Amino acid sequence: MRETAAPSAAAPGASDAPPPADALPDDELNALNAHWRAANYLAAGQIYLMDNPLLEQPLRPEHVKPRLLGHWGTSPGLNLIHTHLNRVIRTNCRDVLCIWGPGHGGPAVLAGSWLDGSYTRTYPDVTRDAAGMARLFRQFSFPGGVPSHVAPETPGSIHEGGELGYALSHAYGAALDNPDLLVACVIGDGEAETGPLAASWHSNKFLDPVHDGAVLPILHLNGYKIANPAVLARLPETELDELLRGCGHLPIHVSGDEPLAVHRALAAALDRSLELIERIQRTARAEGGVERPRWPLIVLRTPKGWTGPAEVDGLPVEGTWRSHQVPLAGVRENADHLRQLEEWLRSYRPEELFDAEGRPRPDVLACVPDGDRRLGATPYANGGLLLRELPLPPLERYAAPVDKPGATRHEPTAVLGNYLEELMAATAGRRDFRLVGPDETASNRLQAVYGATGKAWQAAVRPVDEHLDRHGRVMEILSEHTCQGWLEGYLLTGRHGLFSCYEAFVHLVDSMVNQHIKWLRVTRRLPWRRPIASLNYLLTSHVWRQDHNGFSHQDPGFIDHVLNKAPEVVRVYLPPDANTLLCVADRVLRSRDRVNVVVAGKQPCFDWLTPEQARAHCARGVGIWHWAGTEDGHRDPDVVLACAGDVPTQEVLACALLLRRHLPDLAVRVVNVVDLARLLPREEHPHGMTDAEYDALFTREKPVIFAYHGYPWLIHRLAYRRVGHPQLHVRGYKEIGTTTTPFDMVVGNDLDRFRLVMDVVDRVPGLAVRAAAVRQHMEDARTRHHAWIREHGQDLPEVLDWSWTG
Amino acid sequence: MRETAAPSAAAPGASDAPPPADALPDDELNALNAHWRAANYLAAGQIYLMDNPLLEQPLRPEHVKPRLLGHWGTSPGLNLIHTHLNRVIRTNCRDVLCIWGPGHGGPAVLAGSWLDGSYTRTYPDVTRDAAGMARLFRQFSFPGGVPSHVAPETPGSIHEGGELGYALSHAYGAALDNPDLLVACVIGDGEAETGPLAASWHSNKFLDPVHDGAVLPILHLNGYKIANPAVLARLPETELDELLRGCGHLPIHVSGDEPLAVHRALAAALDRSLELIERIQRTARAEGGVERPRWPLIVLRTPKGWTGPAEVDGLPVEGTWRSHQVPLAGVRENADHLRQLEEWLRSYRPEELFDAEGRPRPDVLACVPDGDRRLGATPYANGGLLLRELPLPPLERYAAPVDKPGATRHEPTAVLGNYLEELMAATAGRRDFRLVGPDETASNRLQAVYGATGKAWQAAVRPVDEHLDRHGRVMEILSEHTCQGWLEGYLLTGRHGLFSCYEAFVHLVDSMVNQHIKWLRVTRRLPWRRPIASLNYLLTSHVWRQDHNGFSHQDPGFIDHVLNKAPEVVRVYLPPDANTLLCVADRVLRSRDRVNVVVAGKQPCFDWLTPEQARAHCARGVGIWHWAGTEDGHRDPDVVLACAGDVPTQEVLACALLLRRHLPDLAVRVVNVVDLARLLPREEHPHGMTDAEYDALFTREKPVIFAYHGYPWLIHRLAYRRVGHPQLHVRGYKEIGTTTTPFDMVVGNDLDRFRLVMDVVDRVPGLAVRAAAVRQHMEDARTRHHAWIREHGQDLPEVLDWSWTG
Repeated sequence: MRETAAPSAAAPGASDAPPPADALPDDELNALNAHWRAANYLAAGQIYLMDNPLLEQPLRPEHVKPRLLGHWGTSPGLNLIHTHLNRVIRTNCRDVLCIWGPGHGGPAVLAGSWLDGSYTRTYPDVTRDAAGMARLFRQFSFPGGVPSHVAPETPGSIHEGGELGYALSHAYGAALDNPDLLVACVIGDGEAETGPLAASWHSNKFLDPVHDGAVLPILHLNGYKIANPAVLARLPETELDELLRGCGHLPIHVSGDEPLAVHRALAAALDRSLELIERIQRTARAEGGVERPRWPLIVLRTPKGWTGPAEVDGLPVEGTWRSHQVPLAGVRENADHLRQLEEWLRSYRPEELFDAEGRPRPDVLACVPDGDRRLGATPYANGGLLLRELPLPPLERYAAPVDKPGATRHEPTAVLGNYLEELMAATAGRRDFRLVGPDETASNRLQAVYGATGKAWQAAVRPVDEHLDRHGRVMEILSEHTCQGWLEGYLLTGRHGLFSCYEAFVHLVDSMVNQHIKWLRVTRRLPWRRPIASLNYLLTSHVWRQDHNGFSHQDPGFIDHVLNKAPEVVRVYLPPDANTLLCVADRVLRSRDRVNVVVAGKQPCFDWLTPEQARAHCARGVGIWHWAGTEDGHRDPDVVLACAGDVPTQEVLACALLLRRHLPDLAVRVVNVVDLARLLPREEHPHGMTDAEYDALFTREKPVIFAYHGYPWLIHRLAYRRVGHPQLHVRGYKEIGTTTTPFDMVVGNDLDRFRLVMDVVDRVPGLAVRAAAVRQHMEDARTRHHAWIREHGQDLPEVLDWSWTG
Repeated sequence: MRETAAPSAAAPGASDAPPPADALPDDELNALNAHWRAANYLAAGQIYLMDNPLLEQPLRPEHVKPRLLGHWGTSPGLNLIHTHLNRVIRTNCRDVLCIWGPGHGGPAVLAGSWLDGSYTRTYPDVTRDAAGMARLFRQFSFPGGVPSHVAPETPGSIHEGGELGYALSHAYGAALDNPDLLVACVIGDGEAETGPLAASWHSNKFLDPVHDGAVLPILHLNGYKIANPAVLARLPETELDELLRGCGHLPIHVSGDEPLAVHRALAAALDRSLELIERIQRTARAEGGVERPRWPLIVLRTPKGWTGPAEVDGLPVEGTWRSHQVPLAGVRENADHLRQLEEWLRSYRPEELFDAEGRPRPDVLACVPDGDRRLGATPYANGGLLLRELPLPPLERYAAPVDKPGATRHEPTAVLGNYLEELMAATAGRRDFRLVGPDETASNRLQAVYGATGKAWQAAVRPVDEHLDRHGRVMEILSEHTCQGWLEGYLLTGRHGLFSCYEAFVHLVDSMVNQHIKWLRVTRRLPWRRPIASLNYLLTSHVWRQDHNGFSHQDPGFIDHVLNKAPEVVRVYLPPDANTLLCVADRVLRSRDRVNVVVAGKQPCFDWLTPEQARAHCARGVGIWHWAGTEDGHRDPDVVLACAGDVPTQEVLACALLLRRHLPDLAVRVVNVVDLARLLPREEHPHGMTDAEYDALFTREKPVIFAYHGYPWLIHRLAYRRVGHPQLHVRGYKEIGTTTTPFDMVVGNDLDRFRLVMDVVDRVPGLAVRAAAVRQHMEDARTRHHAWIREHGQDLPEVLDWSWTG
């Protein structure tokens, strides 16, 4: 493939064309090209060389790595952008963060960082000379070295180059509340096909030109993915232009395969973009303009694997998918490949780029900025450096008063909403806390926050609208992917936030949270990466209360998903009531470098604990609720009723009441679990309990009936190593559900109070004879409830109309 | 909100405007409106009434359901489309399938189906008269009744109205290889914000106008989601028009809130769309045109909750988000709400719509088609009716010859590729098998299929491209969501397919597979729903072999995710070699109503089993590999080495070799697990083993060292009920990884042969004294390998250079 050599003017209909392509003085042009050539040389060198980095000797097979790994195809394009962003930063004295969407091109980003000296600042043993270059080359994709992609180890990055789709939402997240920051976001034409990326184009309807920074998307069309042409690269330019205008952008097109012409056109396009961005920001900030701006965007078309081998073994490689990874694969065995590699590497004329000691020559570095402005050194990419403690309100101000357990009810998330309102108000000036959610803030009963801030919205507003706010800090879009991407970008640049989501649909971001957990697992081991605020999920509208929706909205499996991941990162909390939710919220908002999953209901829920009790319970993570049990302090209980989650807790306490009434001699212990990882062994999770602690709560041989919020086998997976495990019997969600009443749901899944009493009768040995009658009585109660519900379409009031008398 | 009453012309720049709005004769117009009024009445009736369905008596509180559930807001729009699709079907004698993206509007789709008689055909007790109407109303969102959303229970649907985002990809999947079918696809403006939906707009670059049917997207902008305006509804019409043109469509705009005007405009827009579609198909089919067509699309703007209460309690409701669910919430308690409800219901003039027996009057049914053409009766929505057995090739033709175990190696997925090539060839005429994947068919080594068919592609083609084919049946787009949506749509309409995907990134569709499993779980219990072909995943490029990519590409947790779901639906297979993969493929392609997850490597893998052995092993799902063990037939083994997955099998067999050499007196049994659910108890999964079967394989008290492909605790979760469980020790992936060598990966996660030998020494009691020396020897070997890998950047050849001598 060969593109037309000349940079194209902007597409028909564009109101903006880049300025004349010869605006760049020749010496600057040549210096830019030298930087680019150096970066290309360094990228190819990382993929191939383990010795002879400056090609001082003729290339021999033993200089070449035995395993050739990495992605060359995208690297020249990323290098080009790196070169030109350097120029923009230097010329404009601006803070720029770059999101490298095609992060598979790790060699490119590493090359740029090595050239600007930020790599050596981060890793002093990789010096900016021949010895350091040798290390840079050898370590790449080498055992014990650095990963093939842009990764946490890469200075200047907040974006792993693994799974694709999140570049643009990360970029917007980083730009929010950073008014002086320009976030350049390179989007590959492969990534552009993904759903998360496609959704995130509309982020510009949420970007406040007053308080937020700017995002400059650079859509890089190199034409191919692994083995296929990319869809956007094969649209007629007019059609692509319509698409991007329809996304609210002003596209500026740069195309070509003649380096100097492309340098000129790209420099002009970037200058034009910055001019437009400055005009937009000035209009909004100084002149109070309220029109949604049309932000610029650059479409950059250059060949895949540009400057690499044009042909290998008679097949075209440069400009095709064949250059995606390693264009010459047989270098050690195939003399012709070796020769081609040497020709390719020497085509960059390394002797002109590096001095005898391997240091980049001055003209190579002419475009490179200094200090923290370097792309590899910006503190925005190491957000912990910028993080401030949140001004968290005192919990007691919002706690529910509790005279006795189970006498009153509150909507836990509504109580939390009041607390969050104060937090929103307290951060109104600092603007470093955001709430995100897929159009569910009110549905999840957090609407009190609108007392302090509105919903970010830059699109049209009508009189009937409520709480829309050009400067709001609640972010709502019906895309869990975009919500997650925004929040990740916000956290990674040193701010705080909370994601409220329907429990079932948080699975949409399973894959995203995997990547974020992996990111945190690695950054925690890198001393130069400073801790960032945790990614906090509030999962509500949960499996047991999907009255309007039914089976499709019932899935408690996110907990299982997250608990498979790095234990140093993941935490799961199941607060049983409003006050405990407040305590958990306080805890997770203070934590760092974690992914916290909090599951709490939005429906009225009995209050069990006073604020003080809740705080203590939350600190322990698990505890005996003595007031709920009937065990004599001097002997072991006959049975342990355990619970985790609001609805299971309610059913367990109702079961305890029934046992107190019907089997008064039975010694019952009630244990509530807030912090699910407590059930794991101490050596498997930092929150895990020792065996002694576990046994003291659950006993070593008594039956334990455990009512759990989610899939019951998860509890077995956590507790299987315990001595008492053979006595553990778990009830939970078994994928049985439809649109029905709350009590019908627990009955359907055998989690109801009556079933729990039957479980006790079935499992406690040596019960009095009348236990059989009690069991039958419970069976009858289930039948009676079932029939009543089927006839009347609602639960018998008695399932909520009781108060705790223990 | 009030939209301008007149239907707008197409947007500026449109080359097509609908024909004059008065083309519809008045009697037809009135009949359409009568049908729409009836449907609206029935939708509202379902949400509110449990008695007095025809309002023969004044409305009293006891006629109203105690729990008011459902989504009114979207229903009038869906009803409008249902009415008009009826007309189109009847007028054009076409097969139409409708995908109701806003499936929360269950009452609407049920209303339409009841009106056209297909509901009664499916559920004879819900007759098309007053008694049936009473049932229809009462059952909706009622315990023991039908779900609130469009669901498997809904005749005419292949698309659950729960999680949003998949309407358009489902529609395209349904249209593929159904040349005579028109798939209308209603997309809500909420759903349009999701990533999966946004990505799926580009499906039109893959739709073959010759062999595929047509998709007519109807973007329904009612302006609001749960609590927010929708983004697309707040774009200026010109900008929205650009966006949709950029997506390759020709938008036809219909807007208004005056029913008769909207009826006229919508009828004209549909007629125009059909005319365009017919022209496109004629051009491609009869005239051999090869230009990618610009398919029509309808943008329909009508008020949310149209015809419902305009105001409630002084706040605007119709045309706002407040009509999203139940516009009048307090009907039983609030006399004013009750009065408003009665007014609202009577506003449809039910007495004009239904006769005294509650039967729809003739003019209401004038637009309704007959027989299988009815939207609620089309066999395309009950794909099992159309399903044919696949012509599967004989396995032996493609099997790897195996003289002795472990002497040769094959790439399992490449062997499967050959088999799939024949299957592709055998279905060339029938066109009922497709392979989908996110740009990975060749990367996953299945490229042999290109010998039989190419990659579907309607966009521009260049000379360098390979295997692109306007009529191809391999579908590649870099969107796992779109791949999954296409395949689901294809399967649900009665065809077959396979999804090949990188193991780590299949988590992108966690949420989609949840919904599909739920769908199948319900349809399996509906006698009128005929079984469909299973959804088959081939997960490759798996956790142990991510040489080019590293940590971000390592995640074996999809297995855990799927095994949480309905056991009657889910199956997981881990074939240890190429021949077993062939047998598993044969099995899953024959199966029905399942989600099958097959994990297999693409790298060269030792051949262990002959085709006959593989077939027998696959049929059992788990078995002792006697040739690999050293147990004396007359006594129990000292230790069981179990394995599941290709890499773990290799390490276990190497461990068995080491034990044979170093501890020759030890009686070792090797057990391989192909079908993971076999480990579950029989009562928890249809494939589960009885305790007797399990004990016969794994013993009741001997140590079992289990090398597993994924997260080790999953094996405990499956086996915790077994007597021998305390002796079970599992090795697997522990989230330790980076870009490194294959053997370094297994060492890092303690899954390597040396570690397994050490595990044996640590766990088998009463070993000879020299076992300690053997253990040290293994420890030394690990150290030696580690150092060699760090120095040389590759594995010592000995980890692959051995042959099985047992």
